Amino acid sequence: MIKAVLFDIDNVLYNSGHQVEMARRSAVEAMVNAGLGMSIEEGFEKLEEIVKRYGSNFNKHYDMLVGNRKDKNRIIAAGIVAYHNTKRVYLKPYEDTASTVMKLKMLGYRVGVITDGLSVKQWEKLIRLGLEDIFDCVVVSEDVGVEKPDLKIFLKACEELGVKPKECVYVGDRLDTDMTGSNGVGMVSVRLLRGRYKDERPKNPQEQPRFEISRLDDLLKIVKNV
Amino acid sequence: MIKAVLFDIDNVLYNSGHQVEMARRSAVEAMVNAGLGMSIEEGFEKLEEIVKRYGSNFNKHYDMLVGNRKDKNRIIAAGIVAYHNTKRVYLKPYEDTASTVMKLKMLGYRVGVITDGLSVKQWEKLIRLGLEDIFDCVVVSEDVGVEKPDLKIFLKACEELGVKPKECVYVGDRLDTDMTGSNGVGMVSVRLLRGRYKDERPKNPQEQPRFEISRLDDLLKIVKNV
Repeated sequence: MIKAVLFDIDNVLYNSGHQVEMARRSAVEAMVNAGLGMSIEEGFEKLEEIVKRYGSNFNKHYDMLVGNRKDKNRIIAAGIVAYHNTKRVYLKPYEDTASTVMKLKMLGYRVGVITDGLSVKQWEKLIRLGLEDIFDCVVVSEDVGVEKPDLKIFLKACEELGVKPKECVYVGDRLDTDMTGSNGVGMVSVRLLRGRYKDERPKNPQEQPRFEISRLDDLLKIVKNV
Repeated sequence: MIKAVLFDIDNVLYNSGHQVEMARRSAVEAMVNAGLGMSIEEGFEKLEEIVKRYGSNFNKHYDMLVGNRKDKNRIIAAGIVAYHNTKRVYLKPYEDTASTVMKLKMLGYRVGVITDGLSVKQWEKLIRLGLEDIFDCVVVSEDVGVEKPDLKIFLKACEELGVKPKECVYVGDRLDTDMTGSNGVGMVSVRLLRGRYKDERPKNPQEQPRFEISRLDDLLKIVKNV
């Protein structure tokens, strides 16, 4: 019998992929308007190339795009302001996130989060999503010292909730981390088919989700029937 | 004859001292609501002590305030979200900033900015203040390689505008940097009596402002009469 439902944050409670794409588009548009000297499409393509090449944590994307010119700092600043403004607007839950989590709670399930990242940053997301009070446990990789698919992080959530892994549903979007880890501890793995990983195929049995859903509220049927 | 009017940004185009104070108060309130376990007044006093002791650029103020406890990251995140939300709201020009700069321009004066800081950060402020298009020159210490009161940064603005120092008014709030530097190159120094430095007294003749004003629109009389 299922006693708890655990969620990833990024791309599961909200559309983080879309958020980042819209923020980057908005940044490019602002830089073009500030005099970047190329079309928005061209700018966006170049920025995507730079992000791909140097990784998303590199902090000089805009410097690379703008190049060395007299007014570069003004153009970069225009991009940064637009990026952050847009990122805030798109940091909102999916339309069925809050209602699904709330219904699960009212049906008596414990609910929680297992997520990779910096603890304060992940809490900031929950607060901005308006979801900081609803979860019975929030486990972040930084606090545990390991990332998904390491089994420790999944077991930590079970320990905090006082439940066994097989009594838990875990909802994630990635095969290599979310499905591998939750299957590894014996949780009921659920893959949410949203965002950039939705067309990937399992490369081994550990990546195979027990269920696939396209909306979070599909969870309500799954928890009843398992 | 005055040909140009140059401004500092922080505490001159907007009330940066008030902005930071309100943002810190809002952060403390959010942390208290998240379970910090002290009163808002007590929290604010402690935070001020920490800022005083470790400097405003130290990035662990909230960690020090919250201490080592299980839910510290959640409380810190609540503070950070509130801080940034409030900081944005208070990043707005004084009520007479835009109108004064605009009137000076329409009267035929060149207008500019001379400010200390990181170039992209100072441009971000001008953009968020809605003032990024109005100035004929923006000189930031990072780009020049020296900070106020170094005369070079004042001379750089004159060079960009093609005017002599004695044809410029410089408006700042600080005696040690703004008045010393603008007096040093022979600009007409104007001290805006707003913010945390407004009760300081000149310690030497170089710090003595040529004029003192309590509102930016008092500049309109000064430039006509010099």
